[in-house]
Amino acid sequence: MVNPAHSSDFLIAPDPEDLRLTRRVDGIDHTGKAASIRVVEERPLTIFLNSQEIVTAMTIGDYPKYLALGFLRNQGMLSADDRIRGVEYDAELETVVVRTEIQTDFEEKLKKKTRTSGCAVGTVFGDMMEGLDGLTLPRAEVRTSWLYALQRAINTTPSLYLEAGAIHGTVLCQMDQPLVYMEDVGRHNAVDKIAGWMMSENIPAADKILYTTGRLTSEMVIKTAMMGIPALASRSGFTAWGVEIANSVGLTLIGRMRGKRFVCLSGADRLIWDADPDSIADEARKSGRKGAGE
Amino acid sequence: MVNPAHSSDFLIAPDPEDLRLTRRVDGIDHTGKAASIRVVEERPLTIFLNSQEIVTAMTIGDYPKYLALGFLRNQGMLSADDRIRGVEYDAELETVVVRTEIQTDFEEKLKKKTRTSGCAVGTVFGDMMEGLDGLTLPRAEVRTSWLYALQRAINTTPSLYLEAGAIHGTVLCQMDQPLVYMEDVGRHNAVDKIAGWMMSENIPAADKILYTTGRLTSEMVIKTAMMGIPALASRSGFTAWGVEIANSVGLTLIGRMRGKRFVCLSGADRLIWDADPDSIADEARKSGRKGAGE
Repeated sequence: MVNPAHSSDFLIAPDPEDLRLTRRVDGIDHTGKAASIRVVEERPLTIFLNSQEIVTAMTIGDYPKYLALGFLRNQGMLSADDRIRGVEYDAELETVVVRTEIQTDFEEKLKKKTRTSGCAVGTVFGDMMEGLDGLTLPRAEVRTSWLYALQRAINTTPSLYLEAGAIHGTVLCQMDQPLVYMEDVGRHNAVDKIAGWMMSENIPAADKILYTTGRLTSEMVIKTAMMGIPALASRSGFTAWGVEIANSVGLTLIGRMRGKRFVCLSGADRLIWDADPDSIADEARKSGRKGAGE
Repeated sequence: MVNPAHSSDFLIAPDPEDLRLTRRVDGIDHTGKAASIRVVEERPLTIFLNSQEIVTAMTIGDYPKYLALGFLRNQGMLSADDRIRGVEYDAELETVVVRTEIQTDFEEKLKKKTRTSGCAVGTVFGDMMEGLDGLTLPRAEVRTSWLYALQRAINTTPSLYLEAGAIHGTVLCQMDQPLVYMEDVGRHNAVDKIAGWMMSENIPAADKILYTTGRLTSEMVIKTAMMGIPALASRSGFTAWGVEIANSVGLTLIGRMRGKRFVCLSGADRLIWDADPDSIADEARKSGRKGAGE
């Protein structure tokens, strides 16, 4: 029997008490009565790579440096070889500047690109796919007992989601233990913050499992693969292309995970069925997540 | 008593039978047995404005022309004054080219921008906010009986969501009648396809209500306002900035709408309480949406 994890077991856990992350807003409920509810904050953050403005992301605003680093890494704009000289966050300007020792490949590419078509937006996706070329993830077994333990721990951990809703969560896990639980208004931001933390702390990826409240789309699968993590689990569903990419890079992909149920659409031969599903309670409506990403 | 809408009442309804939109994928379920499930397709679509490559969107792939038109309009890259000369879709190249009679303002801006910083990604958000300057939506009343009727009609309409999950829906409505129901793997695509359809068909916006399965973030609120629609409803939650923008442009904003319950955080003085919430059944777990956007 696995006990629910406590926030103190996490290296980083959500902080629902952080007053910068939520706000009380007054309104009216369905009966016409005044209602005051907590809603999550959402702020722009403009990310620069050296002197190059890259993107303005909408974020809840915690961990801006991890977000910037992880975004650039997951988009393939920073490679493992690029040495980071500094990461500067300016709260007033709402900017993060990531500086590398030498100009990155991406800036070179961008220069060529802008000479021809004047815009780099379209290259972002192409560059992400390029980063997958020839990538094969390390073979890693996943025990179903870990999946059930992780699901239970994550669902019972105090979070902004449970307090205010309308937010996505992504959790970096090792075996049955959740380690880093990030939340954000954009589900990709939550993943990027984990990627940024892993880069900063030099965390190995081959023995990790990533859990997301979001759907298993191509972009989510590509990001997980770019991070070198060999397993991705979600309570939500799949897209066909997400499944295809997972199979091609050897990513174990588990979705529709609720209560005792789940479906594995890639890497089922790497799953070890060491838990009896009948011993797992079905999700109680109240305690289960209501649908984080809606 | 309002009857559930039939797909035939819609001008455009989801087509769960369209074989291009879903695929059967084989996997293994939690008991270790083979499982074959339907998952939605996801394809890249690269959008051009005249000779300018703008973005590659990940989409389910129906209505690419509406998606391109609506995306450009909602980003403020096409103004109401820009005359469209043609919209060309190339299924093989997965591109849509939107051609205007004369070069657009956006292309002018982009040229200036690229001369200085070489990249236009960061301008997209700024341009969207700029489009809101001085915008005030027409004052429109919303009856709570319409909200309940719409919710019921939308939840009981056959959809890709009900068939395969992992997809977002957005519905253009008039009073208690849903008119156009678009679904897409990206929730913003679903809204953009509706915007593109409205542009193409010259549909007035002032008497419409937009319903989304997604969260009421700043971007969703800005898009609805850019489309000129004065009311936005969702079964999902709010962000603080979404609420702020809605209040500043006069958009009626209703969220957390499930069964008899909802919360209105902007424009409650424009709501008319003509339905008794106690006559509305709470959502049955099976019939309610499970969380489209997760």
